[in-house]
Amino acid sequence: MAYRETVKIRDRKAAQREALLAAAEGLVREGGFAALTIQALSARAGVGVGTVYRYFRAKDTLAAEVFRLATEREVAAVAEALQHQTDAAAKLEQAASRFARRALRAPRLAWALIAEPVDPAVDTERLRYRAAYAALFEQMIEAGVRAGELPLQSPTLSAAALVGALAEALVGPLADHQADEHVVQQLIRFCLRAVGAADPTAPEVSHEQVC
Amino acid sequence: MAYRETVKIRDRKAAQREALLAAAEGLVREGGFAALTIQALSARAGVGVGTVYRYFRAKDTLAAEVFRLATEREVAAVAEALQHQTDAAAKLEQAASRFARRALRAPRLAWALIAEPVDPAVDTERLRYRAAYAALFEQMIEAGVRAGELPLQSPTLSAAALVGALAEALVGPLADHQADEHVVQQLIRFCLRAVGAADPTAPEVSHEQVC
Repeated sequence: MAYRETVKIRDRKAAQREALLAAAEGLVREGGFAALTIQALSARAGVGVGTVYRYFRAKDTLAAEVFRLATEREVAAVAEALQHQTDAAAKLEQAASRFARRALRAPRLAWALIAEPVDPAVDTERLRYRAAYAALFEQMIEAGVRAGELPLQSPTLSAAALVGALAEALVGPLADHQADEHVVQQLIRFCLRAVGAADPTAPEVSHEQVC
Repeated sequence: MAYRETVKIRDRKAAQREALLAAAEGLVREGGFAALTIQALSARAGVGVGTVYRYFRAKDTLAAEVFRLATEREVAAVAEALQHQTDAAAKLEQAASRFARRALRAPRLAWALIAEPVDPAVDTERLRYRAAYAALFEQMIEAGVRAGELPLQSPTLSAAALVGALAEALVGPLADHQADEHVVQQLIRFCLRAVGAADPTAPEVSHEQVC
């Protein structure tokens, strides 16, 4: 009987923790990490401040966990998209477009993940987030170079540069709410040119097609 | 007489402020912004903690000012390099190489400016720093497109992407102290390909030349 109660309590705690994290992400989606305070989360989740502190010992550890969960989901979505393509150019096109389109659908969240000035604890998670994307790109470029689809280059360096390019190029449009399909297309072209890939949708890139 | 004394005091204060900023940058060059505390600065500059507080009201405003001064100098050095080139490819090659080589010469400072997790006040300066570089690149790409040296593209987007690419690609090598001439060359090629520029030093890029 005592054992069963413990399991029940543990389950209830896990559920409440999850609900708090979901509510916390909701706050970030609306106002970035600046909007994520223990006070605001308590109000949003309809629980006391003390309850929030029972699950998260400080604002920055809570923010770091929200960041980690949101970005693991983002990276997984891009990784999944790569499974369906065979050559390097198609993979990169998919990855860049998936990354950019997800950002367009949730611009405030994307801005918070990519560029919002945040606490060092969250910034550390951000470095991990970028490293995870870079690892995906590196694998893809390495395979592309090996297959002769891409010119010889350092896959590590090009992968990091792609992550930086995608993130930085989206920051402005995301902040100004000006990101649209045109931005996505421009970004894809930039990335494909950067690694020396032929554009899979337009083998011969003319000036008209680029813009 | 009173007026002269005021001028003297003002001059002395300005000199002490400057000396404190130089000492602060020295700390950042050695240990990043994490090493820049009021306590450490007081010890390094050989003045009391109270004296430091008379010039800088908090650690984060001090760090933000150190960041701003260091990056204004970096951007000015790159802008200066651009003056001596005529076509877009040569300008971009100069800018990328100047940026990367300055980073190699002071890797810890460069890492602190580009990627170290920092206080939001410093992060805000970092966004300005990147915007300043982007403005330089944008001008260069716009002129290159107008002159028909570069394919049609959004100069704003490509410029932001270049800033992100350069910064992100250097982060890993800088942290691992593995940045060298090879990294610089790879980065320049990536940037030139990305904007669709011909390599000014090697019109025909073969696999051997790329790696």
